[in-house]
Amino acid sequence: MTRKEISKSVLKRLPGYLAYLKTIPSTGSPYISATALAAALGMGEVQVRKDLAMVSDGGRPKIGYLRESLIDDIEQFLGYDNTTDAVLIGAGKLGQALCGYSGFKAYGLNILAAFDVEPSAAQTQEGTPIYPMEQLESFCKANKVLMGIITVPAQHAQKVCDQLIECGIKAVWSFATSHLEVPEGILVQYENMATSLAVLSMHLQAQMKEKK
Amino acid sequence: MTRKEISKSVLKRLPGYLAYLKTIPSTGSPYISATALAAALGMGEVQVRKDLAMVSDGGRPKIGYLRESLIDDIEQFLGYDNTTDAVLIGAGKLGQALCGYSGFKAYGLNILAAFDVEPSAAQTQEGTPIYPMEQLESFCKANKVLMGIITVPAQHAQKVCDQLIECGIKAVWSFATSHLEVPEGILVQYENMATSLAVLSMHLQAQMKEKK
Repeated sequence: MTRKEISKSVLKRLPGYLAYLKTIPSTGSPYISATALAAALGMGEVQVRKDLAMVSDGGRPKIGYLRESLIDDIEQFLGYDNTTDAVLIGAGKLGQALCGYSGFKAYGLNILAAFDVEPSAAQTQEGTPIYPMEQLESFCKANKVLMGIITVPAQHAQKVCDQLIECGIKAVWSFATSHLEVPEGILVQYENMATSLAVLSMHLQAQMKEKK
Repeated sequence: MTRKEISKSVLKRLPGYLAYLKTIPSTGSPYISATALAAALGMGEVQVRKDLAMVSDGGRPKIGYLRESLIDDIEQFLGYDNTTDAVLIGAGKLGQALCGYSGFKAYGLNILAAFDVEPSAAQTQEGTPIYPMEQLESFCKANKVLMGIITVPAQHAQKVCDQLIECGIKAVWSFATSHLEVPEGILVQYENMATSLAVLSMHLQAQMKEKK
């Protein structure tokens, strides 16, 4: 289908549909309706209909979507069938864990190498090479890498981000808690675990106060 | 100060302020103004002023906040000085990585144990014990655990979530991509890496299309 312009909020909901579609046993009906999907995910039917119409034109009135085709359409839309090469900066515990996380392959992410100011080893436990920072630029340019993953402490994140952009990186995935300044055309996506923890802790505090 | 009711959106911004405040070298002025903070973080001044007023009454006109006190106020507010005990379900690569991630201690999170349907070892590399799922309930009740972290594949997440709630868990931190149904009073916070990756990949695809 012709590719439509899509909003970030639609984009953020697509992996949720995909995950749910993949959990449906293939022994049932090969079709799924937007109504059923909305009910299963606790979402509004209108929103689900609109979202799916952005990525697939396979929906048929009163029947719905062929589940397998809808999965293919969403995956293709999300680019999971194209592999994105990335470098990761900061080969500490979290960084090494991300390098070894096999789940990323399903989403088309391929971490080529990790970089660190002081590499503690030549490679991670899973075999991803770890290079000193001095080699970042030549590596990124030789491999035409466009995505950089930042797993350094917050106080070093901006410096690392600047270095990545100088190396030609266009998309930054940051696990550091600090805000990053980037020029236009560069996208930063934050994975802020501290934020999640704050929300959860606050909920627990409120719960305990209620009990008293 | 008296604790005010705080919105989730304010709560989500607080760790960002905290991270930035901690990066300021202590050699400079001991004070920081909401104006300076807003400028550094690329945020609106009015919003920063309002947010800080929710957690600290130490701001002085024309001078600002004493940086160290503001850090203390935010940390206390976020409960980082209280430790939250948690259990983690799914001792795969991501789960084990989270158990070993020392950064969580700074946020007051303490992962007591990991659970798995088929534990591959008695403990993680870092020494967190791994128990079979059968022991989850007795462990949670004996240790009065209120937070559960889900790192199982999407198709098993709902079942695990239900089990956690039966064990008395009040806050769920899910790394699975699927939507979870929970009763009232239980908070689910999603850490959806697939979503982040989708947003980043889409940006790169758009960039490459522009180039052509």
